[in-house]
Amino acid sequence: MKKTRLFTPGPVMVPEDVMLHMALPMEHHRTKFYRDMLADVSDHLKYMFQTNHADCLTLTGSGTCAGEASIVSTVHKGKNKALNLSCGKFGERWAKICKAFGLDHTDHTLDWGTGASADTVKKMMDDDAAIDTVICVHSETSTATVTDIEAIAKVTQERDALLIVDCITSCGCLPFRFDEWGIDIAFTGSQKAMMLPPGLAFACVSPKAWRRIDEADSPAFYNDLKAHRKSLRSWDNPYTPANTLVLGLQKVLHGFKERGLENIWKETHTMAEATRAAARAMGLGIFSKSPADSVTAIMVPENVDEPTLRKRLRSEHGMQIAGGQDALKGRVIRIGHMGYVDASDTLAVIAALELELKFQGHEIELGSGLKAAQEVFLAALSATK
Amino acid sequence: MKKTRLFTPGPVMVPEDVMLHMALPMEHHRTKFYRDMLADVSDHLKYMFQTNHADCLTLTGSGTCAGEASIVSTVHKGKNKALNLSCGKFGERWAKICKAFGLDHTDHTLDWGTGASADTVKKMMDDDAAIDTVICVHSETSTATVTDIEAIAKVTQERDALLIVDCITSCGCLPFRFDEWGIDIAFTGSQKAMMLPPGLAFACVSPKAWRRIDEADSPAFYNDLKAHRKSLRSWDNPYTPANTLVLGLQKVLHGFKERGLENIWKETHTMAEATRAAARAMGLGIFSKSPADSVTAIMVPENVDEPTLRKRLRSEHGMQIAGGQDALKGRVIRIGHMGYVDASDTLAVIAALELELKFQGHEIELGSGLKAAQEVFLAALSATK
Repeated sequence: MKKTRLFTPGPVMVPEDVMLHMALPMEHHRTKFYRDMLADVSDHLKYMFQTNHADCLTLTGSGTCAGEASIVSTVHKGKNKALNLSCGKFGERWAKICKAFGLDHTDHTLDWGTGASADTVKKMMDDDAAIDTVICVHSETSTATVTDIEAIAKVTQERDALLIVDCITSCGCLPFRFDEWGIDIAFTGSQKAMMLPPGLAFACVSPKAWRRIDEADSPAFYNDLKAHRKSLRSWDNPYTPANTLVLGLQKVLHGFKERGLENIWKETHTMAEATRAAARAMGLGIFSKSPADSVTAIMVPENVDEPTLRKRLRSEHGMQIAGGQDALKGRVIRIGHMGYVDASDTLAVIAALELELKFQGHEIELGSGLKAAQEVFLAALSATK
Repeated sequence: MKKTRLFTPGPVMVPEDVMLHMALPMEHHRTKFYRDMLADVSDHLKYMFQTNHADCLTLTGSGTCAGEASIVSTVHKGKNKALNLSCGKFGERWAKICKAFGLDHTDHTLDWGTGASADTVKKMMDDDAAIDTVICVHSETSTATVTDIEAIAKVTQERDALLIVDCITSCGCLPFRFDEWGIDIAFTGSQKAMMLPPGLAFACVSPKAWRRIDEADSPAFYNDLKAHRKSLRSWDNPYTPANTLVLGLQKVLHGFKERGLENIWKETHTMAEATRAAARAMGLGIFSKSPADSVTAIMVPENVDEPTLRKRLRSEHGMQIAGGQDALKGRVIRIGHMGYVDASDTLAVIAALELELKFQGHEIELGSGLKAAQEVFLAALSATK
């Protein structure tokens, strides 16, 4: 017997009770049942995003869908100019969206594995007064790198610019404070920290962002945030929502409230710390210069064939991890710390990684990574005494 | 005890085994497992659409998402002009999409309850040589009305125009023949005849439509059909798909192949015929002049309060039916014949309707509607002898 364990940075493992809850007999969405649920869910989403004043919209689509909605609704053609900070595949995607819709933008490309800096944003805005919108990824999934959004938000607030944050692999697992930091729009998807199947996406929209959105019409219909705002007033969606996923969402969000968001952030941090410690103890490098806690990118030693390693982790151990994307293909493996994953799962994937590295002839002392990870978990246990 | 029964024209009831199948442990979508499934599903979708030559794309979103994708990808700004045939709420929606994206179009509005005619299309195309695209709803859910797509397709083919068909409440339940009729793009959603939860949408794209799509870039990213085509070449989706719903889709499509599409069309027709016969026997009018078999809109007698009727069908009988939309609010009720619904369910809703009409003081002989419906079912049984 081999259990399937997903360590991919989305989709992630989903709790069994949530899966079964979504198998309840179908309900229609124009019912009191659904409206009450959407009201409750929208309120709980505020907790996830850490906002009191913004609206949390639930879209049917992937994170890219919510990203497009956020960008297209706020960067008005001929009126606004965006600075897109790109330090990985997902940063690149938001620039592609600006391009596809003919939106005025500057794309600032950083080395993969580095986060964007507030100083750069400041300088670029000083150099180009037309920039009134900044698009930034909080946790870049492709490089497992975190950016200091709080610092960047200080810059955008000073200049009254709009800050759009991709928090797809951050909201719900990394410290993220929409109101306190001064973010204007943030968006995420269901298949990450919210540990649901893919299919829902969320946009958190501040009053300041709504004012910008209301300044002009956007080339959007399915992704028109105004239509979502209008429907939300009566706890409705403009188009048929993926309502079984909303059922699961409600269950997950209630669980998050009970566990406490800060505890979840801590747990995620501990699993990431343990994984990084294990990698170092095994003599493997961490790819990112500012590693995110939601996913870890580990350098694959030169004598190890990455596709074989990943394939065998699946075939021999039932473990699905992620490889590198684009330029990082074959160079890194990525192990997620989001969703329905715990310390024991994390130790299990470290153990399997040790076994497979050894199997491929890489010199490594079995148990060395595990011991380093355990030490991190022990420290975390001790801290709760 | 009251069982919940959905007779809404989407979402519809979903088979229990399909629901539970979607509760299997999460899988990642960049795996052999998913690619094999998407290949199989895409092939079975061809059977649903009745095509050999077109590509069947699976999108994560509602039917509106696929409608937007189809329209925006083919009606190029400054190059093409669409004729939109609007005979209900959904026809109106496609005109709104043309408007939101600034696409050149003429909106031809018909009386609600009538279908579009080929003669009108012919005349309008004769009068305006710029029209090279026709957008038409096959089964207008808001008015429960069917349009003769085959006849309209003859006109568009003669003129080498592109025909875009909303088959949201037709594909999989009404006779629908993409290749034979000569449709260029058709789109539908998962929560109708395909008896799945909402969250997936499908676009069937002919080689002729691809040629048009390739003529120019479109204001689309999430909804860019070209990106979907590119990914489909390696049985992939461009963005994270709602993969648990694809799991359910595979199960449903295999079931459809076993049951035979023509048998499903017949069964749907029989349930619709039975419902119409029951309504007439109860002295109630059918709203549509060309009623669709996927959903029936029944006129509510003047002495009966429609909201109360609908509310009590739910509270006293567990039955969720739909009311009228916009101008039809309070004037009609709508009963669906799509998805996981059978003759016994249909008789059950007719019985409940009789009881509630009587309860509200409407003169009706109990059992009269049921008898008329049974006669239709008996004729269908006899035909299979």
